[in-house]
Amino acid sequence: MIDVIAFDADDTLWHNETLFSMTQEKFVRLLANYHSTEWIEQRLYATELRNLHYFGYGIKGFTLSMIETAIELTDGQIQGREIQRIIDTAREMLRAPVQLLEHVAEVVSRLAAVYPLMLITKGDLFDQETKIAQSGLADYFTHIEILHEKSETTYRTLFKKYQIDPQRFMMVGNSLKSDILPVLALGGQAVYIPYHITWMHETVAPDAATSAQYVTLEHIGLLPALLGQ
Amino acid sequence: MIDVIAFDADDTLWHNETLFSMTQEKFVRLLANYHSTEWIEQRLYATELRNLHYFGYGIKGFTLSMIETAIELTDGQIQGREIQRIIDTAREMLRAPVQLLEHVAEVVSRLAAVYPLMLITKGDLFDQETKIAQSGLADYFTHIEILHEKSETTYRTLFKKYQIDPQRFMMVGNSLKSDILPVLALGGQAVYIPYHITWMHETVAPDAATSAQYVTLEHIGLLPALLGQ
Repeated sequence: MIDVIAFDADDTLWHNETLFSMTQEKFVRLLANYHSTEWIEQRLYATELRNLHYFGYGIKGFTLSMIETAIELTDGQIQGREIQRIIDTAREMLRAPVQLLEHVAEVVSRLAAVYPLMLITKGDLFDQETKIAQSGLADYFTHIEILHEKSETTYRTLFKKYQIDPQRFMMVGNSLKSDILPVLALGGQAVYIPYHITWMHETVAPDAATSAQYVTLEHIGLLPALLGQ
Repeated sequence: MIDVIAFDADDTLWHNETLFSMTQEKFVRLLANYHSTEWIEQRLYATELRNLHYFGYGIKGFTLSMIETAIELTDGQIQGREIQRIIDTAREMLRAPVQLLEHVAEVVSRLAAVYPLMLITKGDLFDQETKIAQSGLADYFTHIEILHEKSETTYRTLFKKYQIDPQRFMMVGNSLKSDILPVLALGGQAVYIPYHITWMHETVAPDAATSAQYVTLEHIGLLPALLGQ
């Protein structure tokens, strides 16, 4: 029995990582005269991880990390107008229209008629609120929570806040690390729907015992059948 | 009669604008060989306003605006290592310890024993959560809300969410634009406690009729007496 179904947003309801990935490709091209693709990507990732503690997740922090990596990798020789191009891509990312994944609109509206739905996402408040508003899905969710991090601690706080019994809670998302494992650890239910790209920082390899505790679906269109709807 | 007292955070409970102001002074010094202080400040402010729609409030957006202004004002001649210094100041801002304003710790703990208190702030989620945690005040607040913008619409949503009667709600803050005027417009009560610096974007000049509707205090230490505590 399920009282509440919660959805992750980025790469579960709408495309997100593709946008970061496309921007990263542009960034690699910008520095192609200086270094190999592999080395640029490796240094950018290292800068992102180092900055996560200061900047958190989201486009603005990613942009600052790109700028910092560009300065480091060119030994300060990068031109002002090239850095301007990096900032311009940030603005392009921020105004990119929200693109729902296939089946999302239908599945969310159908399940909202039966269950209270929650949206639980992490990242930049301003950015996430803009996307939620643009998605046209906001009204289907009883509660929307934007967290700075999805961990056992933050899920536990939510369960307390909304008096949710974890055993009757189901989380649906594309990140094993953020959406699945912490919810299972608290006794909740989880449905893993992989997206075709996952940011390295979100990847984990769960053991066989853990894998047996959650359901993996190929796409969200299969969720109503799983729920017997 | 008051059911709930809500506090703004930045420059009401702890120092914030001084940090932006000090960073801006460093920025002006960085470009001092190129332009006058006035022109640098004017162009930075113009960039900030233009970017507000994309980046929202907060240190990361401010940093991207400083970088963009530096590129613009030096016609792209700014050096990579100078831009690195701008990013370094962002990290310094983000790890600056939270400094409570005078009387805050005492007043908040005293009022929390009598009223349910709320914290209503705006800006960067990650940044604000870090400051709230560091402040040591989190446990005094029944609800903490971090908004992307403080407007009649967002206050109305909060009143509905927490079933608050605006007439029995008091907002305490340092921004007429964000803390006082929207709350008055919805029939609430407001206490204005000016901070010694106000960001230009937050300044408004209310008319005499509006000014008569809120109380101005010199510092937060005077709040308990106003409430008859």
